[in-house]
Amino acid sequence: MILKEYLKKSQQEIDQFLDENMPKPSEKPSIIFEAMRYSVFAGGKRIRPIISFMINDMLGGEKQKIYYPACAIELIHTYSLIHDDLPALDNDDFRRGKPSSHKQFGEAIAILTGDSLLTLAFQWIAKTKDSPDVITKILDQVSVSSGVYGMIGGQVADLQAEGKIKQNEMDLNKNKSNYEKELEYIHLHKTAALIRASVMIGAISAGADQEDFDRCYKFGTLIGLAFQVADDILDVEGDQELLGKTIGKDANSDKLTYPSVYGLEESKKKARDLINMSKDILSHYDNNNILIQLSDMIIQRES
Amino acid sequence: MILKEYLKKSQQEIDQFLDENMPKPSEKPSIIFEAMRYSVFAGGKRIRPIISFMINDMLGGEKQKIYYPACAIELIHTYSLIHDDLPALDNDDFRRGKPSSHKQFGEAIAILTGDSLLTLAFQWIAKTKDSPDVITKILDQVSVSSGVYGMIGGQVADLQAEGKIKQNEMDLNKNKSNYEKELEYIHLHKTAALIRASVMIGAISAGADQEDFDRCYKFGTLIGLAFQVADDILDVEGDQELLGKTIGKDANSDKLTYPSVYGLEESKKKARDLINMSKDILSHYDNNNILIQLSDMIIQRES
Repeated sequence: MILKEYLKKSQQEIDQFLDENMPKPSEKPSIIFEAMRYSVFAGGKRIRPIISFMINDMLGGEKQKIYYPACAIELIHTYSLIHDDLPALDNDDFRRGKPSSHKQFGEAIAILTGDSLLTLAFQWIAKTKDSPDVITKILDQVSVSSGVYGMIGGQVADLQAEGKIKQNEMDLNKNKSNYEKELEYIHLHKTAALIRASVMIGAISAGADQEDFDRCYKFGTLIGLAFQVADDILDVEGDQELLGKTIGKDANSDKLTYPSVYGLEESKKKARDLINMSKDILSHYDNNNILIQLSDMIIQRES
Repeated sequence: MILKEYLKKSQQEIDQFLDENMPKPSEKPSIIFEAMRYSVFAGGKRIRPIISFMINDMLGGEKQKIYYPACAIELIHTYSLIHDDLPALDNDDFRRGKPSSHKQFGEAIAILTGDSLLTLAFQWIAKTKDSPDVITKILDQVSVSSGVYGMIGGQVADLQAEGKIKQNEMDLNKNKSNYEKELEYIHLHKTAALIRASVMIGAISAGADQEDFDRCYKFGTLIGLAFQVADDILDVEGDQELLGKTIGKDANSDKLTYPSVYGLEESKKKARDLINMSKDILSHYDNNNILIQLSDMIIQRES
C-alpha cells in the first residue's frame, strides 16, 4: 500500500474513534468536554496511533484490540501540548493555526483540560480489548514513557536548558560534549519516549516475544529521536504556513536543539543515520514495507 | 484497636513506603523530584490510603498487595492540591502552613509536578502486587474517579459555581433546589469520588463479590460526601492553626458550600445522617470496629 493512502485511511478511522469515544459536550460540566474536543480535533496528524497500528500489523496483531490504547497516546500527546503552551511554560498563543487552549478557554480550564486528557488516556488503557495481562504491560510502558522517566523528564530538562547556549555562546565548543549529552537526554525523553510507547502498544498486543520486544523498543527510540531532530530542522528551515506554527521559535527562545549544537547539515546527517538504523531493525521482518515508507517520511516531511 | 494508634502506625508505614518508592532527588532532572517530594511530604494525614487498608482488612485482604495503588491515590490527591493552588485556579500561596508548590518552585515546575504525580500514580497501579485482572479493575475505578467523571468534573463545576450565590443572594431561597443539586454534584465528584476509589482498591484486592462491591461503592460515596461536608463546616468554624490554612476562604471566594446553602446546623445534621448511613452498611460485616471509629472521626475531626 502507498503510505499516503494508509495515513489518510488511518487518520479517518482514528478521528472517528476519538469522536465516538470522547465524552460529548452535551454532558455536564460542558466547558471541559468542549475544551477536550477543541484540542484533540485541532488537526493532529495522528502519527502516534498510526505507528501502533503499523507495528501491530507487521507483527500479526489485531487492530481492533488496540484502538483504545493507541488513541490514548494521542490524548497524552494533546495534553502535553496544552500544558506546554501555557503562559508559565512556552507561552504559545497559537497551536496548529488556532488559539491555544488557554487563549480559547482561559488558563484554569486549560490546566484542567490537560489533566482530564491524561486521566482519560489511562481510563482508555483499562478498556483495551485484550487480556488483563496485556493491559498491565501496556499500562507500565505508557506510564513510564509519559512521566518523569520519560516525556515530563524531558520537558523539565528542556525548560532548564533554555538560555544556556546564549549565555555561553563563546564556549559552545569548549562545552560541546556536555551540550550533546543534555540534548540527547532531552530529545530521548521529551519526544522519543512517547513514540516508543506507541510502538510498544502495537508490539505487546501482537504477542511480541522478548526478541521482538527488544527490537521494537530500540526501533521506537530511534524513530522517536529522528522525529524530534527533523522537528528541530523544520523549525529552522520549514514553511511557516505548512507547519501552522511560528518558525525560528526555538532559536529565539534559545532552546537546546540539534541545529544549535551540531549545525544544520550535521543534524540532517544524524537524522538520516537514525532512520537507517531503524530500517535495519525492520529488515528482520516481512511485511515491513509501510513502516519503511513511514521511516523515510519522518525525516522528509514538510510539516 | 484504638483509632488513634491505628492511624499513627499506618501513617508511618505509608510515609516509609512513599519515601522508599518515590524517585530520589539525586536523579536527574533533580528539580522535579524535589518538587514531587516537597508536596507529598508536606504533612498529609494519608487518610485515603488508610481507608484502603481498613476496607481491605475488614474484607480479609492482604495489605502487602495494595501498598502501590493505595499510595497512588495519595499521589493523585497531592497533584490535585498542587494544580488547585495555582494562580489561575484557587491562587493559594500556602498549603498546610508551607508555601504552595508554585510559590516554592515557580508555576512551570508546579504544573509539571502535578502532571508527574498523576502519571506516577498510574505507574504504581501497574506495579500492584496482585493479578493483572485486579490491576485492570483498580485502574478502571481510579481513572474514572479522578477524571472528568469524578474529581476533575467536580473541580470544573466548583470553578463555575463560584460567585453565583453572591450575585443572587436575594433569591437563594427561590433557586435553592438548583443550588442543592449543583452542590451535591460538586461534592460527590470533587471529593467523594477519589475517597470512593480508595475504598474500592481495598475491596477489589480483597476479592469482593458483587454484593460487597456494591456496598463498598455506596459506603465510599457516603463517607466521601460526609468528609467534604465536614470540610465545609471546618472552613466556617474550625481552628486556623490546627487546619494550617486560612479560615473563611470559601465564603470570601463565594464558593458553593453546605453552610452557604443549608446553614451551619442543617449541614451538621446532614453530615451526621451520612455517617449513620455509612455505619449501617458497615453493620453487615464483622471486624468493622476500626471503620466505625473512622466514620465517626470524619465528622468530629478538628483538622
